[in-house]
Amino acid sequence: MNDRFNKVIENMKDSNINQFIICDPGSIYYLTNQLYHTGHRMLALLISLDKEPELFIHEMFPTRDLKDIKVNYFKDGDDSLKMLYQALDKTKQVVVDKYFDARYVIGLRNFGLDLPIEVGSYLIDDLRGVKTDKEIELMKNASKINDKVMLELQDYISKATDKITELALEKVLSQLYAKYTDEGYSFNPIIAFGINATDPHHVTDNTVLKKGDCIVIDIGCVKENYCSDMTRTCFYQEVSEFNKNIYNIVKEANEKAMALVKPGIKFSEIDAIARNFITKQGYGEYFNHRLGHFIGTECHEAGDVSGINNNLVKEGNIFSIEPGIYIRDKKIGVRLENLVVVTKDGCESLNKISLDLKIL
Amino acid sequence: MNDRFNKVIENMKDSNINQFIICDPGSIYYLTNQLYHTGHRMLALLISLDKEPELFIHEMFPTRDLKDIKVNYFKDGDDSLKMLYQALDKTKQVVVDKYFDARYVIGLRNFGLDLPIEVGSYLIDDLRGVKTDKEIELMKNASKINDKVMLELQDYISKATDKITELALEKVLSQLYAKYTDEGYSFNPIIAFGINATDPHHVTDNTVLKKGDCIVIDIGCVKENYCSDMTRTCFYQEVSEFNKNIYNIVKEANEKAMALVKPGIKFSEIDAIARNFITKQGYGEYFNHRLGHFIGTECHEAGDVSGINNNLVKEGNIFSIEPGIYIRDKKIGVRLENLVVVTKDGCESLNKISLDLKIL
Repeated sequence: MNDRFNKVIENMKDSNINQFIICDPGSIYYLTNQLYHTGHRMLALLISLDKEPELFIHEMFPTRDLKDIKVNYFKDGDDSLKMLYQALDKTKQVVVDKYFDARYVIGLRNFGLDLPIEVGSYLIDDLRGVKTDKEIELMKNASKINDKVMLELQDYISKATDKITELALEKVLSQLYAKYTDEGYSFNPIIAFGINATDPHHVTDNTVLKKGDCIVIDIGCVKENYCSDMTRTCFYQEVSEFNKNIYNIVKEANEKAMALVKPGIKFSEIDAIARNFITKQGYGEYFNHRLGHFIGTECHEAGDVSGINNNLVKEGNIFSIEPGIYIRDKKIGVRLENLVVVTKDGCESLNKISLDLKIL
Repeated sequence: MNDRFNKVIENMKDSNINQFIICDPGSIYYLTNQLYHTGHRMLALLISLDKEPELFIHEMFPTRDLKDIKVNYFKDGDDSLKMLYQALDKTKQVVVDKYFDARYVIGLRNFGLDLPIEVGSYLIDDLRGVKTDKEIELMKNASKINDKVMLELQDYISKATDKITELALEKVLSQLYAKYTDEGYSFNPIIAFGINATDPHHVTDNTVLKKGDCIVIDIGCVKENYCSDMTRTCFYQEVSEFNKNIYNIVKEANEKAMALVKPGIKFSEIDAIARNFITKQGYGEYFNHRLGHFIGTECHEAGDVSGINNNLVKEGNIFSIEPGIYIRDKKIGVRLENLVVVTKDGCESLNKISLDLKIL
């Protein structure tokens, strides 16, 4: 078994857990280097202390290059959950991935699994949260593309002579990424003008860009299975004093948070320094989300930078720092996001392009 | 409350279920006409017999236009599951969506929910499976686009003078769809040449199209929130006798299945007629998936056309019919898929373009 498997098994021993059912494609990729997306069909990797790992997967999905794992194929119509149930030792504790479907958890219980099933994702999530040198290199590559594309997209906006809509920009974005990667977006890109930017998860539409608008661009791509994710906010043709002030508050919040990051500090302290600064400036209520999230082969991995995460930062963690202020009445939303990797005594931004205010 | 809500509530009464927690964005859309995608953050609609429905959603997601529903917003750091737990009547049965995360099911139980939680998706899935006239019209519109784009893509292939890769074709596809819809794909398109076509879920890559190759094109788009999904297989420049024979077997299997569809017949019978025909021709083992799946606002909705679904077909059901034969040794994969809507005494294909063999 590879080193990663062995570490999960060590964690299981430490926690007195005998059997762990994993369904998260990112976790399975982490352990096997194989990415399976099986839609609504069951996907489960069973790790047991007492026998070799077993994968349960529909026969339609080829599992070439899978080593040291017993593969149990099923067909449509087979009771795949029953197969998984039969592979379990019913006298020993079973834990499951946090994302395992209710139908499976409840199904296993109804088959007769007696010991209460618990969530066991922590057995692998902390491992996935610490990136290896190779992974850091891949994450840097993905963010390098993101930097380039962001600048090219801003350049496109500043040179455009016709009216620009959010959707038109998204099409340009998709073409820009295509120059550098075949793996597409790491999430649905957010391109939001003016009041739309006050919705942090705005869905790109036909809104036309107007003079003085803020432009939130929150984008990411996948390269060699690793994700990038960055946000820049800029202004079209001019910026009001009010908006400039909001921008600089968000920028300073981002910089303060980044300056604090190093191994040993709590995630909640990083969230607090940004949030307290924004609150002190009078905009605390307009910063309505956590400061950041972990990222890797999935854009949102387990772990975040929020007020309730009192875990300690570790060298090799990669997460976003993305403070924002969204004021609907003022039609202004600003978010500034970089990914950072924690180093021995601080952190390094994976995104190298400036946070300075830009008027396009 | 609207009619759809009332029907769910009737189903709950019939099943003696007091509380139903829905998390599927498609089901929430069905009931509220609002589409929320909240990523890894909890989304839950609680329907109770004893009080008004309550939605639990992160405050970042605006819920404008939501009627007759109490909205409970939470922030990052709030214990959203605890809020949901507190809204439950612990003395009465709770059922949940089949896709509710393990962390929530187990969390509710660990908070102290005593009655075993069961899966309750059937309370809404059967309703969603019967489309209204308006929905059928929207589904037809989405499939009309799919028909056009399929023909345009085939035309592109037949006229291309440079070498064609799967990925290059996907880029063309994306541009073709963009002419007709801003809502993008209904699933990651499958474009597979030659041996790649033997993997029903092949991930589009840089394979170059060669003379004699089969070309599987399995594509769909979203239009006004409804999905299309169609597969055609064609051949490049020439087709061998062997491949032509395989093609015609799949085509006949598709036609036989479609001819059988009408209200009152079992889904398993539809699967059987196609499967038995393919088996009789000697290729049963190469048809390694169910015959079809339900579709609507999501590309794969609850319900399928498979050997174990003995439910009866109802007027207004919309599902795919997609037999396939995949022979790796012969580098040939053929799948032919139409969506059909069940009418009073038969069915109508939403896809109007021919199933006849095409050489491009």
